[in-house]
Amino acid sequence: MDCQYGAKKSVITDGIVDDNYDDAHIIQKIRKRINSGDKFYSLEFFPPRTDSGGVNLIARFDRLAIGNPLFIDVTWHPKGNSGGDEVTASLTIASAALNFCGLDSMLHMTCINSTTEDIDKYLRKAKKQGLRNILALRGDVSDSIDESVRHTKELKYASDLVKHIRKEFGNYFGIAVAGYPDGHPECSSYEDDIRRLKEKLDNGGDFVVTQLFFDAETYFKFLRDCRNAGITAPIIPGILPIQGYNSLRHLVQLSKLPVPQRILDTIESIKDNDEAIRKFGIVEATNLCKKLLASDDVPGIHVYTLNREEAVVKLLKRVGLWHEESIYKSLPWRPSANGKRISEDVRPIFWASRPKSYVHRTMMWDEYPNGRWGSSASPAFGELKDYHIFYLKNTSKKDELLKMWGEKLESVEDVYEIFTCFVSGERNKYGYKVDALPWSNDALALETLFIKKSLEYINSKGILTINSQPNVNALPSTHEVFGWGGPNGYVYQKAYLEFFISAERFKTLLEVLPNFPMINYHALDLSESINVSNSDHHQPIAVTWGVFPGREILQPTVVDPTSFSYWKDEAFALWTNQWANLYPEESKSRQVITAAVRNFVLVNMVDNDFIQGGNLWKVLDQLFSLEADKAVY
Amino acid sequence: MDCQYGAKKSVITDGIVDDNYDDAHIIQKIRKRINSGDKFYSLEFFPPRTDSGGVNLIARFDRLAIGNPLFIDVTWHPKGNSGGDEVTASLTIASAALNFCGLDSMLHMTCINSTTEDIDKYLRKAKKQGLRNILALRGDVSDSIDESVRHTKELKYASDLVKHIRKEFGNYFGIAVAGYPDGHPECSSYEDDIRRLKEKLDNGGDFVVTQLFFDAETYFKFLRDCRNAGITAPIIPGILPIQGYNSLRHLVQLSKLPVPQRILDTIESIKDNDEAIRKFGIVEATNLCKKLLASDDVPGIHVYTLNREEAVVKLLKRVGLWHEESIYKSLPWRPSANGKRISEDVRPIFWASRPKSYVHRTMMWDEYPNGRWGSSASPAFGELKDYHIFYLKNTSKKDELLKMWGEKLESVEDVYEIFTCFVSGERNKYGYKVDALPWSNDALALETLFIKKSLEYINSKGILTINSQPNVNALPSTHEVFGWGGPNGYVYQKAYLEFFISAERFKTLLEVLPNFPMINYHALDLSESINVSNSDHHQPIAVTWGVFPGREILQPTVVDPTSFSYWKDEAFALWTNQWANLYPEESKSRQVITAAVRNFVLVNMVDNDFIQGGNLWKVLDQLFSLEADKAVY
Repeated sequence: MDCQYGAKKSVITDGIVDDNYDDAHIIQKIRKRINSGDKFYSLEFFPPRTDSGGVNLIARFDRLAIGNPLFIDVTWHPKGNSGGDEVTASLTIASAALNFCGLDSMLHMTCINSTTEDIDKYLRKAKKQGLRNILALRGDVSDSIDESVRHTKELKYASDLVKHIRKEFGNYFGIAVAGYPDGHPECSSYEDDIRRLKEKLDNGGDFVVTQLFFDAETYFKFLRDCRNAGITAPIIPGILPIQGYNSLRHLVQLSKLPVPQRILDTIESIKDNDEAIRKFGIVEATNLCKKLLASDDVPGIHVYTLNREEAVVKLLKRVGLWHEESIYKSLPWRPSANGKRISEDVRPIFWASRPKSYVHRTMMWDEYPNGRWGSSASPAFGELKDYHIFYLKNTSKKDELLKMWGEKLESVEDVYEIFTCFVSGERNKYGYKVDALPWSNDALALETLFIKKSLEYINSKGILTINSQPNVNALPSTHEVFGWGGPNGYVYQKAYLEFFISAERFKTLLEVLPNFPMINYHALDLSESINVSNSDHHQPIAVTWGVFPGREILQPTVVDPTSFSYWKDEAFALWTNQWANLYPEESKSRQVITAAVRNFVLVNMVDNDFIQGGNLWKVLDQLFSLEADKAVY
Repeated sequence: MDCQYGAKKSVITDGIVDDNYDDAHIIQKIRKRINSGDKFYSLEFFPPRTDSGGVNLIARFDRLAIGNPLFIDVTWHPKGNSGGDEVTASLTIASAALNFCGLDSMLHMTCINSTTEDIDKYLRKAKKQGLRNILALRGDVSDSIDESVRHTKELKYASDLVKHIRKEFGNYFGIAVAGYPDGHPECSSYEDDIRRLKEKLDNGGDFVVTQLFFDAETYFKFLRDCRNAGITAPIIPGILPIQGYNSLRHLVQLSKLPVPQRILDTIESIKDNDEAIRKFGIVEATNLCKKLLASDDVPGIHVYTLNREEAVVKLLKRVGLWHEESIYKSLPWRPSANGKRISEDVRPIFWASRPKSYVHRTMMWDEYPNGRWGSSASPAFGELKDYHIFYLKNTSKKDELLKMWGEKLESVEDVYEIFTCFVSGERNKYGYKVDALPWSNDALALETLFIKKSLEYINSKGILTINSQPNVNALPSTHEVFGWGGPNGYVYQKAYLEFFISAERFKTLLEVLPNFPMINYHALDLSESINVSNSDHHQPIAVTWGVFPGREILQPTVVDPTSFSYWKDEAFALWTNQWANLYPEESKSRQVITAAVRNFVLVNMVDNDFIQGGNLWKVLDQLFSLEADKAVY
């Protein structure tokens, strides 16, 4: 008998049922992976030193998210303002990773130079932003600014911090603690160190991340000793792929780690060859990880990335832990990792290329659409005033943008060309590739390649597309490009197209649209003095859905008339904020954009015939024909 | 420009926007039909005189519902207890038609011998049961029992009653009033009669249903005179297809109607030939209706059915008003007409053949599943104690049931044969057709014919099926058998099978089920000591869904694990209540059933491969093979 009904639904871990913990606690994820035998990795970062460093780090998170880390963590730097609101604050970065990059994110926190008031303030703030996991540390003594502060508040050790978090926040936070396979530099003995680790766990720590080490046996001995000392929590080995001579030296100095002579000799011999050191680092780390992962006692590895990407991805690929998300994709879009949004499974298609903006503009919602968008949903979107926020920013610099989008625009036809080049991948007339548009920070979505030629053609004719998807009729849910939701299902899409068109041409389009009863459309200009649709004013249209075994139908993407009005404001604003503003105020180039925007209508069209498809191209063909006819007479 | 967003959603009638009225008010439906030019009909019934008459009337409602009347109404008989709880009460019948037959239902009410307290009590009761429409009448003077009552309470005329309903219940009720094309028998003059009609409408009446008449010109003159008197409300002509000599004589006496000599002569000449009179009645009524319906001034007709069915359906078919529901079907199952359930669009498949029981057991719900069943729904079903309720009863009498299901059962194989005959349509070994089973008052659903041969085979092998549907992959939503939801859509089904099987055989079934990963199953015995499933404990499975233009995906039928437990109780109870109890207490026949029931497991299976299908038959084939193998060794 497979299973019994009526059992209380609770998280079942390795023998332990903990009703107070949920899937947002990293320990639960770790336990699931231990049970399934599916080994994982996590990635450690430090906060950026500059705002543009923040923009780049977010882009890096997005790229690394593709490989499905179990979680990432962000270090705490008490000398900086780690709990502040700046882009360079640890809390800001950890929160952005969680909310906007869909990464489960753990925030480090040290107690050594903080008052309990400070600690509580940071924790409350972390809680407010949806963070659910803390790595509790003492912090380096050198960070201490005032001995009196340290002692009066009685958070002298990490174990005190763990106890304090549990006391003040109960089970809200998952808590990780640090383990030292080579012993803590300041501890009296290795045995004492293990006793202290046990104390941290006894006080409420969930699992252990180890300090870096260089020999597998160091870890295995530590693990054995911990188990012998009664420590049952998972102990995740921390791995550093050596990335350079200086960084290694710095680290070793700080942590007083014993580095094997073998490594020291090699490094010393190639110390002026960064490339060689990095290669050596990858090889070393790969060998170490393979030894570790071969053991059933190692559920996964924790990688000290030093904010580097290349070596880390190489290492993960070599040890077989890098799993590109396609086959794991639970939804057509990447869900936020914030627990508040855990049940969210429907979004309007409009923000498909700007998911962070969607998450940002809906952050204040109390509930998120689940199962279906619903006609009763009256979404209130956050205002459009936050273009400066680092996680919404374009990673390209102004001079790069000008190269892509034109140093000088003479007419709106120049704009057509940029759109066309973005779709075709060809160089623009200045010889540069157009890798991004204001509505799309990334290259064209993979699925768009299926309709690339048609998109290219209509853009060259001034139908400026900013969003599209081809129709899909019952492809397997494991399809490389269109699949999502897990195995054994079928996925479907209605063809969708969203574009800017001049108000005059839109009038002509309205003459041919009645020939296509299977098309639903909605058109708005900026002021909504043009507001035309043949659809129900309140009904959303499902444009992506999936049929899976043992479930109701999933319908994760909709075209919703109310949301479209909010999106329209954003889509129009991007013309100005991202493009027109690149040019001097009275310049011809800026005028070209602003004049076009004043005259544009934003149109969305859904082809309800998801089986045959083709109506969206046909209606535009008819538009072009009618325009040609009109030009003749 | 087709339409503007942001307009307040309100019911738009012919020029009038009435925010206080909604679609449950019959006048709104009439106005919509006037606007669309789509002529309608309504049907008038009197309450039954006996309980079994009630059972039959409900069955008649079900058959007539197929032809899509705009509404039905039930007359009020103050000498009987029209507002009581008996099956013979007008209120009971009107409520059953609304709640259980999906018919918009209007209750007549007279005031002449009632106190306002009585009237208010009846109205409150009607409101509680979901009735939203009243035909307000004075009532026959002969019905008056006490002159003093009549006068002290100041509800002397229908216009007083209308005013009273409006005063006490605002716009909750829609109110119809009666018009007399030949003048009211007690009124001083025809003109005075029209003035009184105007008063009834001015006091709050919505529309007029006329007394019966025999010449089209009588109606058209009345209509002209009403319009000239400033009456703007719709005036629906009342039509009586003459059904017999005596009933006509009685009616004419009561209403003092002038019957044209032509009709009197004909009737008199064939008064001993009921069949001839009925035929004449249909011809007369057809001619009258055709003249009326040819006019743009006549939006529809109101038929005095005298609780007869045949003549009425013939008349409606001849005048082209009988529209079988298939092409109009909004959902795969017939929705209740109770306004409280207006947004209900998902039901578990288990009650597919017992929709009235489902409605009955969910009457107390505050909300009904809309859009999807949802995993959070924790349905609480009403208890199983109401088998006696007339609208849940089998229309067949005990002796008919015994003929169908066997006067005498020797073994469980006799039961297999009854199930097999029900599916095959062949006569049982006693020579009788099996038109119904305890789980299905009606013949096999049309769609089941597609899998009839397979069903027949497995029932003959003791897989006793009580519920099933074939898989459907993207058939047009207008498909004659499988279509629903309106034009231009596609409908889908996962194959479904639900059956009783002995506990021993179920064990063998469990051995072959793992070979079919695309099947979800759930099995329960009566006590739930067997409770086996390979599905999520909480997730419903959509087994019928549809994709339509401009909408989210509709998924009106689900297999829900929680509901299945409730349904199981009902399915098991039907064995005993409807079948075993036919036989004497200690009889062999009863023992055959009760022994089988003790040993049965109720199994449901969903084949998630809705594109290929076939898994449900294959798994049972493997069961039969394995059983044969076991029998050999």
